[in-house]
Amino acid sequence: MGEFDLIARIARRVRPSSSVVLGIGDDAAVLQPSTGQLLVATTDSLVLGRHFTHAWSPAEIGHLALAVNLSDLAAMAATPRWVLLSLTLPQADEVWLDGFLDGFLAVAERFDLCLVGGNISAGPLNIGVQLLGEVRPDAFARRSGARPGDVLAVTGSLGDAAAALSLGDQAGPALLGRLRRPEPRIKASQALAEHVNGMIDVSDGLLADLAHLLKHGHGAELNLPALPTSPALRLAVSDGRARWALQLGGGNDYELLAAIAPDEFAVAAAASAESGLALTAIGRVRSQSGIRCLDAEGQIVEFEHGGWDHFGSS
Amino acid sequence: MGEFDLIARIARRVRPSSSVVLGIGDDAAVLQPSTGQLLVATTDSLVLGRHFTHAWSPAEIGHLALAVNLSDLAAMAATPRWVLLSLTLPQADEVWLDGFLDGFLAVAERFDLCLVGGNISAGPLNIGVQLLGEVRPDAFARRSGARPGDVLAVTGSLGDAAAALSLGDQAGPALLGRLRRPEPRIKASQALAEHVNGMIDVSDGLLADLAHLLKHGHGAELNLPALPTSPALRLAVSDGRARWALQLGGGNDYELLAAIAPDEFAVAAAASAESGLALTAIGRVRSQSGIRCLDAEGQIVEFEHGGWDHFGSS
Repeated sequence: MGEFDLIARIARRVRPSSSVVLGIGDDAAVLQPSTGQLLVATTDSLVLGRHFTHAWSPAEIGHLALAVNLSDLAAMAATPRWVLLSLTLPQADEVWLDGFLDGFLAVAERFDLCLVGGNISAGPLNIGVQLLGEVRPDAFARRSGARPGDVLAVTGSLGDAAAALSLGDQAGPALLGRLRRPEPRIKASQALAEHVNGMIDVSDGLLADLAHLLKHGHGAELNLPALPTSPALRLAVSDGRARWALQLGGGNDYELLAAIAPDEFAVAAAASAESGLALTAIGRVRSQSGIRCLDAEGQIVEFEHGGWDHFGSS
Repeated sequence: MGEFDLIARIARRVRPSSSVVLGIGDDAAVLQPSTGQLLVATTDSLVLGRHFTHAWSPAEIGHLALAVNLSDLAAMAATPRWVLLSLTLPQADEVWLDGFLDGFLAVAERFDLCLVGGNISAGPLNIGVQLLGEVRPDAFARRSGARPGDVLAVTGSLGDAAAALSLGDQAGPALLGRLRRPEPRIKASQALAEHVNGMIDVSDGLLADLAHLLKHGHGAELNLPALPTSPALRLAVSDGRARWALQLGGGNDYELLAAIAPDEFAVAAAASAESGLALTAIGRVRSQSGIRCLDAEGQIVEFEHGGWDHFGSS
């Protein structure tokens, strides 16, 4: 089994689409963009030992590879359209590839996304995904734009993936599922887009991603008891402060964090709920810099800085 | 120096462009496509020990990473527009990154290409490039389409990069330059587009890429003495048969190989010459399968099958 056999194996599982003029098998993909839309492009790579371990199934790796890229499109409120896959594999292992594709293509299908090209090299395992989407010029969400007084709100619940990482073998299926099969918040993001001043996906950790959302020297106040918490997390980590630390510092939940004008929050929350996902207010943007975390009594709680940096410098 | 410092270091070297609504620094890039054009997307990764060695400078690696992707767009006759860069680095080495960017951005600038996003991870060195281009719906070149009787033609000259690989330390600067700083044939490809029935870039080796160009059971006849040969190659490899083997089997020249109707060849060659690159007829497409290589006396010359497969099965 060689490089071209593997490519043929992938191509056989891909269905044609009217937006794909030329797909897998030429030197590049040729695609038909929609009239009047902007193009949205993102890329994210997964590395063994960083994003997944030998304990993961190939299907889980395939799911994650596409989900983390979809989450970046969700942060822009874009519609996913086409994807390219860049695989560096230690060997031409068709069983591994088939399992990987099971996970990858199941996610692609759910989001009506076409696999249109890519490449395969031999080397240390590295999975690169390039995702293309589209968005109306007046409908995309940026990171910047949060204003003092804005409500900070997150979709779904926080801390499950971090708890799964921290509990290791002790983590139950609900927490493990959040870590290994995260759900990109595409639908909620499109429901939220017109109501937010700024939006980002929570991949590096709430505090780290909140810092990316705050510009112009702005800061924020977070109401710790308001952090949305799943029943599984509440059960697995009974200590409230330990739970907050996971929710603030751990990434990988791929929820959306948005800054919303106070008089828009109710409408935004209703739109999010209608898309199937709760939106919870967790704090406010302040004009003073720094992020303050308050407990139920309004006392400041200090945490070590969390957040994920690939070279560990923060 | 962490992940976000490296990203800031890259962003500082990138100039704004009117086609980039949102560039480096958000969750995804937002781009303004041209009206009436198709989108062309390709991705190629470079791995240490496969595509380059420790003997290469970071600038040469940066040049190669972008050039091989541009060559795929050249094979479609597309115009390069935007690029994303996915770096997996063993450590956050800003000296390496600066050198890499010197090579990468010099090529980007020459082709009026904007770096609009990407990501950085820690892990074994892997360089992923995602390239986006545009092409008029009636102006792109496919691989398929070669017809029996078509003239097979290549741009520039063949075998220099393979000779550099084979000669190692003995290779002079002209051959080494072809290997380490290949020139994507964007301009020639646009000149050729309307005259070709099929086109591909020669990256895996002439015989291997010719096989990709031939569909429907077609074959080809190659006139070995006609293979365009640089003075440097003629000087470095005096044995004619050894030279042919390098020209047929070695990839990495990134010339264009096209199938052209006989009565279009003269016009195509003139168009290519006007773009600055000779176009040489090297053989013909035949209706019988198989590729026959003929010497000056019209005798069949046999070669071991060349061509590059990342898992070495061919």
